[in-house]
Amino acid sequence: MEKFEGGMIMKPYAEMSKEELKNEIKELRTEYRKYQGMELKLDMSRGKPCLDQLDLSMGLMDSLNSHADLSCDDGTDCRNYGMLEGISEARELIGDMMENDPRNILIYGNSSLNVMYDQISRSYTHGVMGNTPWCRLDKIKWLCPVPGYDRHFSITEYFGFEMIPVPMSPTGPDMDMIEKLVSEDKAVKGIWCVPKYSNPQGYSYSDETVRRFARLKPAARDFRIYWDNAYGIHHLYDDHQDYLIEILAECKRAGNPDLVYKFSSTSKITFPGSGIAAIATSPNNLEEIKSQLKRQTIGHDKVNQLRHVRFFKNIHGMVEHMRRHADVIRPKFEAVENIFEENLGGLGIAEWTKPNGGYFISFDGMEGTARLIIDRAMKAGVKLTPAGSTWPNHKDPYDSNIRIAPTYPTLEDITTAAKLFTICVRLVTAEKLYEES
Amino acid sequence: MEKFEGGMIMKPYAEMSKEELKNEIKELRTEYRKYQGMELKLDMSRGKPCLDQLDLSMGLMDSLNSHADLSCDDGTDCRNYGMLEGISEARELIGDMMENDPRNILIYGNSSLNVMYDQISRSYTHGVMGNTPWCRLDKIKWLCPVPGYDRHFSITEYFGFEMIPVPMSPTGPDMDMIEKLVSEDKAVKGIWCVPKYSNPQGYSYSDETVRRFARLKPAARDFRIYWDNAYGIHHLYDDHQDYLIEILAECKRAGNPDLVYKFSSTSKITFPGSGIAAIATSPNNLEEIKSQLKRQTIGHDKVNQLRHVRFFKNIHGMVEHMRRHADVIRPKFEAVENIFEENLGGLGIAEWTKPNGGYFISFDGMEGTARLIIDRAMKAGVKLTPAGSTWPNHKDPYDSNIRIAPTYPTLEDITTAAKLFTICVRLVTAEKLYEES
Repeated sequence: MEKFEGGMIMKPYAEMSKEELKNEIKELRTEYRKYQGMELKLDMSRGKPCLDQLDLSMGLMDSLNSHADLSCDDGTDCRNYGMLEGISEARELIGDMMENDPRNILIYGNSSLNVMYDQISRSYTHGVMGNTPWCRLDKIKWLCPVPGYDRHFSITEYFGFEMIPVPMSPTGPDMDMIEKLVSEDKAVKGIWCVPKYSNPQGYSYSDETVRRFARLKPAARDFRIYWDNAYGIHHLYDDHQDYLIEILAECKRAGNPDLVYKFSSTSKITFPGSGIAAIATSPNNLEEIKSQLKRQTIGHDKVNQLRHVRFFKNIHGMVEHMRRHADVIRPKFEAVENIFEENLGGLGIAEWTKPNGGYFISFDGMEGTARLIIDRAMKAGVKLTPAGSTWPNHKDPYDSNIRIAPTYPTLEDITTAAKLFTICVRLVTAEKLYEES
Repeated sequence: MEKFEGGMIMKPYAEMSKEELKNEIKELRTEYRKYQGMELKLDMSRGKPCLDQLDLSMGLMDSLNSHADLSCDDGTDCRNYGMLEGISEARELIGDMMENDPRNILIYGNSSLNVMYDQISRSYTHGVMGNTPWCRLDKIKWLCPVPGYDRHFSITEYFGFEMIPVPMSPTGPDMDMIEKLVSEDKAVKGIWCVPKYSNPQGYSYSDETVRRFARLKPAARDFRIYWDNAYGIHHLYDDHQDYLIEILAECKRAGNPDLVYKFSSTSKITFPGSGIAAIATSPNNLEEIKSQLKRQTIGHDKVNQLRHVRFFKNIHGMVEHMRRHADVIRPKFEAVENIFEENLGGLGIAEWTKPNGGYFISFDGMEGTARLIIDRAMKAGVKLTPAGSTWPNHKDPYDSNIRIAPTYPTLEDITTAAKLFTICVRLVTAEKLYEES
């Protein structure tokens, strides 16, 4: 493959003659078949930690044992019922992680997605702060920065909300559009945000973006920002970290204390599915949530909360732990970025992001190529997130965006997968241009 | 207190003269004040395991450690995302516990109450099997065997359902009434059942009752039985166990395979709040549930599922574990029953149940006394479940039922509490009769 990587002329496709495109296609097909012959079975579809990352948290399994005292600082026995809001030391730790006062934190079960779903479901069945339950309204609209997180969109799709795509930029979503829609339309009840190391771009909202969010003047009194800070401490570089203005504090300063629900979890810190999730929000919102939550459960898993606290000890322990995660996955991100640059740079057929943290790289090919690229990669044994996933209702109107998840495969495998991916991108694009020329 | 217990004449209150009642009240007040002087702080309000019971499960904390292989039998890494329905070995174990095929089992998080709430919430927002979502209907009715479990009623109260009390007997709820209501009224969408060692009586449904449940002919196609088998293996006696016909199998035999959702958890087997909960239901119902659940979560805590499987090994291990629980709490139940018999037997002013398992004793005083008895006990430092709790909307029309939870206090404390309780019962009843005479 040396010839391909090193030898081929990296000429912008737009400048290629029909003959040159034909040659390019021929060479690429040969390369592609080589990969098919390798019988690959690689997965870069989901943001899953790899084995080396999971091994980092095995100490979690020793942080409690049969001789441990399973009492909290305040004397609560974690083994029995109670403590709807979570144990105080877990609220302290997660408060530090989320940059919020522990009193504004409510610890849930193992999944922040579940917390978000429940928040919407309860707004639907019982309304927000005395406003009409959403199930009694004819239409609910929801703002969806795009490209975005498929599982967010899946919830609002499930409830039948009209999802309005809002374009993303490196500073965050289009705030002019958001301010207009939120202030003019009472049917707009919420917005999905991944404000730091966004899914899939890895963008972090600029100071101005956060300031404008906190100063929204919603037409609907039950409008809320769903602020999913899933990657708050998930840096790739020590010296290139993004910083985000803390939204609860900014909302409070702006006189909008109840405007935001902020979500986070330890899913990509310890074990996905066996961590702890949390919401941070204003005292008013928390009071309302607890009045609902007490009908639903007696309390969440306090033993697992204590297990996490004893393992990390404090926020510094958690931050050091995240450095070890970064050491594992940084080379994978860099490998993908280098291969993309090497094989696609200067061709004028693709763009991709280079995040400082999070779990994804967002890739944009030429219009009308994403589905074909993903299909081509699949047929050579590399699984990618399905086309359209980053858009509401799985419909990318440009058919151009692909989410790349570099963390799960080994460095060797992600290198192979990324190379194949670039071949698929070039091949599909060249074929398209050839047909259209 | 010897005089009180041994020396007083146990004459039926109905046969007492006004003068005798006056003397009785005088003596009881003296006794009562003695207890007040003890500055008790005892709680028999909730069905919580005691410390000795919790200690039985400390081995759970050792069943996984940092050297353990956290892979399932099928190779799934429990530390990562996935497996919406739960790991196969947990479905196997809980299947044995619930007497159901593992393929009919879906493992959830830590709380069966949460599973039940979510089941109702999703029926409300999205309907059952293509029927109209309940939020679009004017009226939903729900059958509530009484006395029953307050947290069940709290859910259906929260959703604004009209709760119809159905009288309980030692063989289960009044099936004539249930058959009539279910078959005639499309608004009746469900019924709460605790079929074995019922909360609060400790009754188990007779074979005929279960057979009639499985043969219901609901007017509403989206009617479901909410079969909360919370105490399926929670026996107090080895040689006096209740047996229950397995409802899923009986429904299948009766041609009603989709009629029932069955719930259970390990909350009172290992640690309340840190166990695993599950639903068992038909393949059709499971398919529908999973199509909803995948929007809400990527999966539940598989590490905790594995922890439980490794701890118990199999259903025999779990059953042996429950014998140890029984050894701890049986003396408490017997102490309460003996004190009730000794201090209230033959007075004709109270009845109580003598269950073979579960967590409660149901007590019925004379009409109009429950609130006063609970208040009196509270003022001497003994906390009981609030009056009315065992009825929908906290309204016991007879003001007679009190749920007794003997498990949490020590044997010494529950003995003291039970004695005080009987004094309160006699005092309140005597005062009432005296005033009315």
